[in-house]
Amino acid sequence: MMKEMRSLGLRYEGGRLFVLDQQRLPDEEVWISCESPAQMAGLIRDLNVRGAPLIGVAAALSLAHDAEAGATAEAILEGAKVLRAARPTAVNLMWAVDRMISARNREPGGVSVLATEAETIFDEDVVLCEQIASNGTGLFADGDGILTHCNTGGLATAGVGTALGVIRRVFSEGKRIHVYVDETRPLLQGARLTAWELQRLGIAFTLICDNMAAALMREGRIHKVIVGADRIAANGDVANKIGTYGVAVLASHHKIPFYVAAPSSTVDLACPSGKSIPIEQRDPEEVRGASGSFGSVRWSPAQSLVYNPAFDVTPVDLITGIILDRGYLSRAALKEGRLLPKR
Amino acid sequence: MMKEMRSLGLRYEGGRLFVLDQQRLPDEEVWISCESPAQMAGLIRDLNVRGAPLIGVAAALSLAHDAEAGATAEAILEGAKVLRAARPTAVNLMWAVDRMISARNREPGGVSVLATEAETIFDEDVVLCEQIASNGTGLFADGDGILTHCNTGGLATAGVGTALGVIRRVFSEGKRIHVYVDETRPLLQGARLTAWELQRLGIAFTLICDNMAAALMREGRIHKVIVGADRIAANGDVANKIGTYGVAVLASHHKIPFYVAAPSSTVDLACPSGKSIPIEQRDPEEVRGASGSFGSVRWSPAQSLVYNPAFDVTPVDLITGIILDRGYLSRAALKEGRLLPKR
Repeated sequence: MMKEMRSLGLRYEGGRLFVLDQQRLPDEEVWISCESPAQMAGLIRDLNVRGAPLIGVAAALSLAHDAEAGATAEAILEGAKVLRAARPTAVNLMWAVDRMISARNREPGGVSVLATEAETIFDEDVVLCEQIASNGTGLFADGDGILTHCNTGGLATAGVGTALGVIRRVFSEGKRIHVYVDETRPLLQGARLTAWELQRLGIAFTLICDNMAAALMREGRIHKVIVGADRIAANGDVANKIGTYGVAVLASHHKIPFYVAAPSSTVDLACPSGKSIPIEQRDPEEVRGASGSFGSVRWSPAQSLVYNPAFDVTPVDLITGIILDRGYLSRAALKEGRLLPKR
Repeated sequence: MMKEMRSLGLRYEGGRLFVLDQQRLPDEEVWISCESPAQMAGLIRDLNVRGAPLIGVAAALSLAHDAEAGATAEAILEGAKVLRAARPTAVNLMWAVDRMISARNREPGGVSVLATEAETIFDEDVVLCEQIASNGTGLFADGDGILTHCNTGGLATAGVGTALGVIRRVFSEGKRIHVYVDETRPLLQGARLTAWELQRLGIAFTLICDNMAAALMREGRIHKVIVGADRIAANGDVANKIGTYGVAVLASHHKIPFYVAAPSSTVDLACPSGKSIPIEQRDPEEVRGASGSFGSVRWSPAQSLVYNPAFDVTPVDLITGIILDRGYLSRAALKEGRLLPKR
């Protein structure tokens, strides 16, 4: 059986796997018992579990848990396939599932090898977050106003988070900072999740609608921007939550540094540039209104045509630097090809 | 008694003044009978009546209606004061109220002079919209994808609208266009009102969250941007719905023309630049969730600190041109001081 594992949004205890239902936050903290990879794929697709690193970890734990429950080799492969298809943009998911399948291939029929690999993926993610935080904290100064988009904290990883993990480290080092939280329409991960995490951590923040960031930048209240990533192409282009690209353009216009924080598993060398990153289109109802534990409302005419990409791509030219677990890469370093393996 | 007047959102008939409750659109069309300037001021403050030109017209009609109902000279002055204070940014409101008071001063105690002035303000607004549409339509071409923000149509004026009036004229001339509608958080005037108007007019549109405009621009789907204005400073800086400034920065980055359409009454020569335009801060609850006829929901932690300016200022340097009833002023013309009275 796997060892006990606990993070803000994921728990393995007493041989059972639980995920915190992120669709019900911030008002309710409900843990869902997750019995199969197919169920986990559904929870990932419906954003009950979300955050690029976390869904990779959750997928790995789900496969190991299935093996412990006696799933056949075929069932494990089928589970891996369903999990891979749950969200097309986040590369960490593919990476984690592939690692599990490679482990299984090293020892076909072995249950403990899957358990060990899943534990390793979980533990590594915790360490990766700490390394990202260490590599990023020096970029921020006492007095900084910091804008972030979407949620990249303890709810998005097995550890302290990526972009929000950096913010947390900056805060814990005693620098006085103020965080501006984009609400992040349409699914409101900023308003619901990042605000909830920052409140728990006691870090001062101001919630804003996405369209208010520009005015705050012009007023000089935002000194740095930091966001996460769902996939980083070999040239340094970054796919992240819809709205990230707009923030990057605004930051560039106002000469404000724009940082991306992510684990190395987010880098997809098979994608030469952002152009080859698939972008998931989601349900139009998400834009016609809003739904969650708070209720379900529609405010636009029922049949309105809608555009609803989950992600956009920020070109490397707008990125000041990428903070990885293995180090900080400035734009110049990115453009020199430092994301590529050493020859 | 005033003559009968009817627009999409305002009616004077049978000696009674009605406003269409814009907070209940698009799902319900409810007309509110408006009995006094104090009530009208409340309806303006609470955005049941909105749109810079329309609130000016509504305020004028309300004062004339009050005079017809036998209000004393003191009561009229008090009504004017309350109306002026209803929304600090929209200069059309001050302008219309001041015209009514000037008319009354020309003929103290006269009721018909107020009725005539209110009728004139209403009729002028209809004509101004047509002139703006005429001056703007040539800027748009067959095949254009056009982004707009907030609502600037028949619901925002006594006529066809300002920015949306231009779009309507472009469409009626047979040019094939597609409109991208920013939902316009926090009060969702785009999602609720502009979508409703475009649907009624049969103009093709796609509703988007405010943070999606940048991705659409990068994809080459937006060829022009057109918005309205709540106040235009003497140097050409424009105050408009929060989020407008960000759109202007994005348009500039993507080399997309950014137009502002407004009646001349929006120009405030007493404001040398955008810096002297007062910006109204609104209730934090508007950002913590959303409310309307569709219900009332809160999705962020209850006590979250919030920033909620109703407007932002777009500097003239980001504006391609301003379409006024009296003509089109390019950025170069604006910078030459062509908004100023001829010497």
